[in-house]
Amino acid sequence: MRISELSRVSGVSVATIKYYRREGLLPPGVATAKNQVSYDASHVARLRVIRTLRDVGGLGIHAIRAVLDAIDDPRRSLHEVLGVAHHALSPAAAAASEPDLGELDEVDALLQELGWRVSAHSPDRRALAETLASLRRLGWDVDATTFVPHARAADELAAVETTSLDPADSRASLVEQAVIGTVVYETALTALRRLAHEHHSALR
Amino acid sequence: MRISELSRVSGVSVATIKYYRREGLLPPGVATAKNQVSYDASHVARLRVIRTLRDVGGLGIHAIRAVLDAIDDPRRSLHEVLGVAHHALSPAAAAASEPDLGELDEVDALLQELGWRVSAHSPDRRALAETLASLRRLGWDVDATTFVPHARAADELAAVETTSLDPADSRASLVEQAVIGTVVYETALTALRRLAHEHHSALR
Repeated sequence: MRISELSRVSGVSVATIKYYRREGLLPPGVATAKNQVSYDASHVARLRVIRTLRDVGGLGIHAIRAVLDAIDDPRRSLHEVLGVAHHALSPAAAAASEPDLGELDEVDALLQELGWRVSAHSPDRRALAETLASLRRLGWDVDATTFVPHARAADELAAVETTSLDPADSRASLVEQAVIGTVVYETALTALRRLAHEHHSALR
Repeated sequence: MRISELSRVSGVSVATIKYYRREGLLPPGVATAKNQVSYDASHVARLRVIRTLRDVGGLGIHAIRAVLDAIDDPRRSLHEVLGVAHHALSPAAAAASEPDLGELDEVDALLQELGWRVSAHSPDRRALAETLASLRRLGWDVDATTFVPHARAADELAAVETTSLDPADSRASLVEQAVIGTVVYETALTALRRLAHEHHSALR
């Protein structure tokens, strides 16, 4: 199909498609005649991944490129690819260079006890350690085991949310589903948690 | 105590204390002599609530005033006061004036089935309806029952998180604890959910 049809099918403007081409996010089409380039279903799929990362995940062009590079790199395992996507989504990603936090060791001990296989570089380890540090600064008597109920709930929900993933799907499609699942279900859970808090304060 | 000591004890600068006084967030002290005003433990406690709402809850001056007004209004029940605090914390608060969403009825049916007592004006009802609408726009075949596992998890966690609340505490202290609990545990749960997703994608 020509660029005008690619635009119509994908819902992405021609100008934006050209921008993604220049930035290398979208592979070139096949030159079929002088000044004419043909695109196919793979381009439609790629545009869908880019838009999901941008509109649902809120990622910038730099983070989108990192996720796409991981998808395209055959040396990367699917687990690594999903790890790249998860890390890109994390709002704490920028905090990795901050000074050491004693609470990190406690978080690692908790993760080990849970038996979770997660990257040592995950920004969420640090986000959790910072949460623990915040509560302590506010004078709360807490340690990492305070989060065990939350960890068990997160574990069960992640199991439910990933059952629909089909390992036979393409890596790009799995990333797309994982991003949507992580971001959209997170919003749903946050809303439900606030409603549940309101309900429980009514009970008391 | 004088304003300089109030500043030292609370960790809030004299200029900021004066600003809160002008804005009516902090009650006046008692005039003890010419040009001298005395503050007491109630002012220290009030400053603590203000700083928690601001630093932990991320609330602006307008939202802080609404929460404080609710705390100070003897006609408001504790449940209403906590409702005001929860609504102020919700990022979806601004969306209340948006057009009707068919998904709102489905969310209400879910809440009724769960037996939750929540305000019909809660912005989180709408946030949940919007989540459902987003998933549908992305082509996912979902309805409100998709969120039942999340609702059950939220219910259990809210029960755990509110057991430490002592109804004999002052309303201001309960609001403070509820805000800290809602915001900080939310951050912890978000981080754990992302880690759990990473773990489950490793399992698959």
